[in-house]
Amino acid sequence: MRKRLADCRVAIVGLGLMGASLAMDLMQNNLCREVRGVARRTTTVLDAFFAGAVDLATNDVHTGVMGADIVILATPVRTIVDQINEIAPTLWPGTIVMDMGSTKGEVCSALDKLPAHIQPIGGHPMTGKETAGFEAAEPNLYRHATWVLTPLPRTTAATVSLATELVEAVGANPVVLSPERHDRLVATISHLPFLAASALVHTVQEVGQEDPTVWELAAGGFRDTSRVAASDTRMFLDILMTNQPAVLAQLDSYISHLTGLRSYLENGDEAALSAKLAAAQAARSKWKPKR
Amino acid sequence: MRKRLADCRVAIVGLGLMGASLAMDLMQNNLCREVRGVARRTTTVLDAFFAGAVDLATNDVHTGVMGADIVILATPVRTIVDQINEIAPTLWPGTIVMDMGSTKGEVCSALDKLPAHIQPIGGHPMTGKETAGFEAAEPNLYRHATWVLTPLPRTTAATVSLATELVEAVGANPVVLSPERHDRLVATISHLPFLAASALVHTVQEVGQEDPTVWELAAGGFRDTSRVAASDTRMFLDILMTNQPAVLAQLDSYISHLTGLRSYLENGDEAALSAKLAAAQAARSKWKPKR
Repeated sequence: MRKRLADCRVAIVGLGLMGASLAMDLMQNNLCREVRGVARRTTTVLDAFFAGAVDLATNDVHTGVMGADIVILATPVRTIVDQINEIAPTLWPGTIVMDMGSTKGEVCSALDKLPAHIQPIGGHPMTGKETAGFEAAEPNLYRHATWVLTPLPRTTAATVSLATELVEAVGANPVVLSPERHDRLVATISHLPFLAASALVHTVQEVGQEDPTVWELAAGGFRDTSRVAASDTRMFLDILMTNQPAVLAQLDSYISHLTGLRSYLENGDEAALSAKLAAAQAARSKWKPKR
Repeated sequence: MRKRLADCRVAIVGLGLMGASLAMDLMQNNLCREVRGVARRTTTVLDAFFAGAVDLATNDVHTGVMGADIVILATPVRTIVDQINEIAPTLWPGTIVMDMGSTKGEVCSALDKLPAHIQPIGGHPMTGKETAGFEAAEPNLYRHATWVLTPLPRTTAATVSLATELVEAVGANPVVLSPERHDRLVATISHLPFLAASALVHTVQEVGQEDPTVWELAAGGFRDTSRVAASDTRMFLDILMTNQPAVLAQLDSYISHLTGLRSYLENGDEAALSAKLAAAQAARSKWKPKR
């Protein structure tokens, strides 16, 4: 008989926004047998424990993962890769190792090197906020979100099934993709928007150095278009460095669309400019955000 | 003694989001003697009248502006320019003509050609939504918003004072700028974000043609960064075509920041990439939107 989430000890490594929000959902709805939290900083360990976000909190990753049925790595991507190697000898046979990292290529390569008695599966919930850390965590963060799962060839159907149960238990919608396909798609709808927002802030800042009134005039358009530029730099640096080719390809496509708009404007080609803007207007109006 | 807003007949030409929201504020708070609305379409005339958004509604611009103390043009920029010329012979001596257009250079040139017995002043409230039209109008749209006023050399202190009274009466904060300075600043914080969002939608759409799952994965980052791309194409076409040099300059600056980020990423120059992302992160976190 296959394992149910309710019977599992779940160890979450990393109690930032993503990990702690997941822990809170598991605890508040009694979704599993035990929720363990691992954090680097002792203050986070104590905060998580006293907030009731976990049953057990520790800053020793080996203590945290030993005997767990499911280990969920919720740290920045390159830390996840290091931690997969670090915890491998400590894990009990049959442990499922999942992650919440924003890119899947390097993580899934590392997962694939785990001993044969470990069951790996990649994961990435498509949600987040520009604020990071335990303080930003909240229950129900994953409700109605898409949660990508990237099983490896060695991942069993039982593991996919248990991971799916967990994803659905917190209200998210699982979508199964290959790591490569995931990485290309998130380069387009997450990593590119981040770089676009960051470059926008630099452009405004440059004008603001001569004329600070620009910040007085900035309203909802700038606010929303630039929001993700306030995201955690460390997290995004890991994302970009582990998804370089896909991000470069999308940046090139983006710059070429901007250059196209620029040349229509420079040449006063109003018909072409209008058609291109109207196409984007129609596509964006048609798309409905999930939340 | 100078004229007070409470004694004025205010004629608003254009009952889209901006004009109708202003009319609603003036009506609901009894801020002036009479609110007149002029709309091109008869359905809008009737909707505005029966919604109580105006005291008097008409689709004849001459009837609407004749005898008004303040005329406020709230149509797309190039329509404003045409309407300034069209209404000039109908206006009574002493009428104040103000506008709500998103660029000020061409509008202020047209305002400057009005007969000497008319008092012109440019204006631009820094607010809006991606939805347009009378249906999108709402009271309190201007509360806490910055409202730029661009007086001409011929504009009297009494006119600036009455325009300021109107702006403050609907809860906005007046900021006085030259048309050129306004146009440069809004190119940076409004027109560039719009083009950036539009190009982003095109980039995603291109990927989506091969792999529509990209739209399933799109979450809050894409949602906010692309939001303004859904804005009214007609309105933005007028904005871009009347602010071409300033927009081109900001687009060039933006593309150069993107190219800079791209080269750091391509060369794996993590220190430079990190510094540039962190600078944007700090600047964006420091800025507080007004609403």
